[in-house]
Amino acid sequence: MREIRRVLIANRGEIALRIARACRLLGLETVGVHSDVDADLAHLRLMNQTVCIGPASAALSYLDGSRILRAARLTGADAIHPGYGFLSENAAFAEAVEEAGLILVGPSARIMRLMGDKISARHEMQRSGIPCLPGSDGALPEDPAEASRAGACVGYPLIVKASGGGGGRGMRVVHREADLLPAIDAAREEALRAFGNPVVYVERFLEEPRHIEIQVMADRFGNAIWLGARDCSVQRRHQKLIEEAPPVGIAEDRLAALGDACARACAAMGYEGAGTFEFLYENDTFAFIEMNTRLQVEHPVTEMTTGIDLVREQLRVAMGCPLSLLQEDVRVSGHAIECRINAENPEDFRPSPGMVTAWHAPGGPGVRVDTHLEAGYRVPAQYDSLVAKLIVHGTDRDDALMRMDAALSETHIEGISTLVPLHRRILGASGFRTGGVSVHYLETFLYEVRPE
Amino acid sequence: MREIRRVLIANRGEIALRIARACRLLGLETVGVHSDVDADLAHLRLMNQTVCIGPASAALSYLDGSRILRAARLTGADAIHPGYGFLSENAAFAEAVEEAGLILVGPSARIMRLMGDKISARHEMQRSGIPCLPGSDGALPEDPAEASRAGACVGYPLIVKASGGGGGRGMRVVHREADLLPAIDAAREEALRAFGNPVVYVERFLEEPRHIEIQVMADRFGNAIWLGARDCSVQRRHQKLIEEAPPVGIAEDRLAALGDACARACAAMGYEGAGTFEFLYENDTFAFIEMNTRLQVEHPVTEMTTGIDLVREQLRVAMGCPLSLLQEDVRVSGHAIECRINAENPEDFRPSPGMVTAWHAPGGPGVRVDTHLEAGYRVPAQYDSLVAKLIVHGTDRDDALMRMDAALSETHIEGISTLVPLHRRILGASGFRTGGVSVHYLETFLYEVRPE
Repeated sequence: MREIRRVLIANRGEIALRIARACRLLGLETVGVHSDVDADLAHLRLMNQTVCIGPASAALSYLDGSRILRAARLTGADAIHPGYGFLSENAAFAEAVEEAGLILVGPSARIMRLMGDKISARHEMQRSGIPCLPGSDGALPEDPAEASRAGACVGYPLIVKASGGGGGRGMRVVHREADLLPAIDAAREEALRAFGNPVVYVERFLEEPRHIEIQVMADRFGNAIWLGARDCSVQRRHQKLIEEAPPVGIAEDRLAALGDACARACAAMGYEGAGTFEFLYENDTFAFIEMNTRLQVEHPVTEMTTGIDLVREQLRVAMGCPLSLLQEDVRVSGHAIECRINAENPEDFRPSPGMVTAWHAPGGPGVRVDTHLEAGYRVPAQYDSLVAKLIVHGTDRDDALMRMDAALSETHIEGISTLVPLHRRILGASGFRTGGVSVHYLETFLYEVRPE
Repeated sequence: MREIRRVLIANRGEIALRIARACRLLGLETVGVHSDVDADLAHLRLMNQTVCIGPASAALSYLDGSRILRAARLTGADAIHPGYGFLSENAAFAEAVEEAGLILVGPSARIMRLMGDKISARHEMQRSGIPCLPGSDGALPEDPAEASRAGACVGYPLIVKASGGGGGRGMRVVHREADLLPAIDAAREEALRAFGNPVVYVERFLEEPRHIEIQVMADRFGNAIWLGARDCSVQRRHQKLIEEAPPVGIAEDRLAALGDACARACAAMGYEGAGTFEFLYENDTFAFIEMNTRLQVEHPVTEMTTGIDLVREQLRVAMGCPLSLLQEDVRVSGHAIECRINAENPEDFRPSPGMVTAWHAPGGPGVRVDTHLEAGYRVPAQYDSLVAKLIVHGTDRDDALMRMDAALSETHIEGISTLVPLHRRILGASGFRTGGVSVHYLETFLYEVRPE
């Protein structure tokens, strides 16, 4: 076992609080880092030590690996948990942590690089028998004629994707051959600007897919398990808003075959820690999109349906322990739903920072709220607008929907606007209630309900 | 089915909030009643309508059945949920509710009377094969010689109990025959004063028993089930402070036999709703103490281990629905613990009313907090000091203990004193950690740790 006594939590808000809770369960000391505007965040009270690492600008604080490492040295931390976002999938940071002789709670820099490049990730998946869409199988040739041939080979509609991309950037959908070459040029330019890497490839485009993902956990001894699937199709501009587990209307044995393949892929590539394989799902077929080599925002729906504390397990694995459970110990029971409560105007999604003057969180059986909110807390304008995650568990999906609606209606917040009213509207919509909506559902719903 | 559209919640604080949440799940409208000092209680925001029923004095508000009934008429409520405490086991109130043509969420007035009198309750239990202690089997004779004979027959030590009593009042422990008659006189006098009923009886006294109780639920169609057992031995002056489920070190088949007997007893007496059979347990033997014909404060530990929403089930049964589950659907999984967070000085248990100036509730996987607390809420001096219930669920008892300790350490409250520090001390004590302590454990622990 690698000795970990003190964990630096390189994040803020609800996820920093979540990680601090898991550290406490394992008797690990914690170091909280924060920017100057975050000095009064609630979770910092739980930390054994706190360090201010810079000004409000994320680039000069939470995204600055050298400042994080300096804080770790200063406080004697021997491990760093990056949470999600910020530096959590930054291979260069992972490398710097390894070189500093510290433990990063997550997979190695090598794995992050392998999965961070979409072309190499796709190759790795194909090697492990994970289903992928028909595609160019590598970088698209520079030569226009060859690129056109590759496009024709894949078929239309197709999508041009940046190999270094993520979160929907550097993508172009192409419906006919005539539009291919301009789309490639535009995607290359955007990719170069956004990721410093102009390499693009093409894949068949699915019109109305669902977003289905598999949670995995693996240790350094080659043990790897999967912990159920999540449906995260309710998105706006590639940002998930509602997640649930298990996915509606997909046969258990189909999910089990996919989950087993993901676990095998983890073992094959020497994956360590928590991770998520993301898929599109259409016409009873799964197609790999990307792997997230970190904890996900929506991990609580998996915790609610399996009863497994994913963050504690992540930390145990980082300490060099073998997985504390076998695949046959994983049982999915009931149904869980998460609504992301963003500090945004529910009409137009404009951020709504400011002072929270009153806050009442819902509760009771089957209700969990992950949040750093407290009355008197000022939501800063500089960061992601997620201020709370409302998660419910019910005996089945109908029960969970009912509990979510009750929990949303109980949520009371003054001083900032949040997406609570929007979530209630979505929960009342017949499409969502039926279940199995595509990734375009939410934008269509928003458009239909509020025509300009 | 009896039509219920609108439920008046005849209680305050966390339990009123708990009931309002369950009503919302069933689409039932709610009426909140409150005394004048309780006008800004958080749960009232959830109600469809609220009514002030009187001044701070409980006798002139929450304990005044006529005011409650008037509020029900005024607001068109067709059912009343009494919660726990206050009027929840008052047979005269239950009768008045029935006479007003309203539905009381709970058993009938007839059952309340039957179980409210300890002698008749004991007879009913014996008829149903529920284990009872050797005792006088009825009122102790007035004649001193006959009373002495009854005492000798039961054996010493014995306990003199008021038939109309409860909560530890009207009781006297007698270790030798010479002390019996003065004890009977004292108990009679106290019982007459406290309950208006001088009838007493005697039972064998157990020296170091545990408090074990069985949760039951029954419908009007004769279906009755039990939902696991709880250990509530950590008490101070007959007030429970920590409860857990399942009880440590008692064989499952012993509990199952007892639980089945309790369910049969419910069916035999025509019980309807939620109820609890309380037992003492010593030397592998159970002995009936009393039945509580209402929801218990500690019901969440049963909800956490069974996944069943007891208050929703209670309301469904009151609506005339059959139980929504069978005995074989009840599965106890993992271990749950509840700590009662009272607004009291943890050194001397003096009440600590006042303004809550900061409040951070713990959370995360396996943690539930039932509370009406919010920053800015003033805890009034007039009522029970319970301000929050902290409940955790773990894979086993050790896991639950760890989670409770982490949750207590995260709990942050300013402005009032609470029992949080005491709970942390109890959780650290080897006796409690081992488990299976007797009802005298806490007072001994308090005395040992802080000798005068």
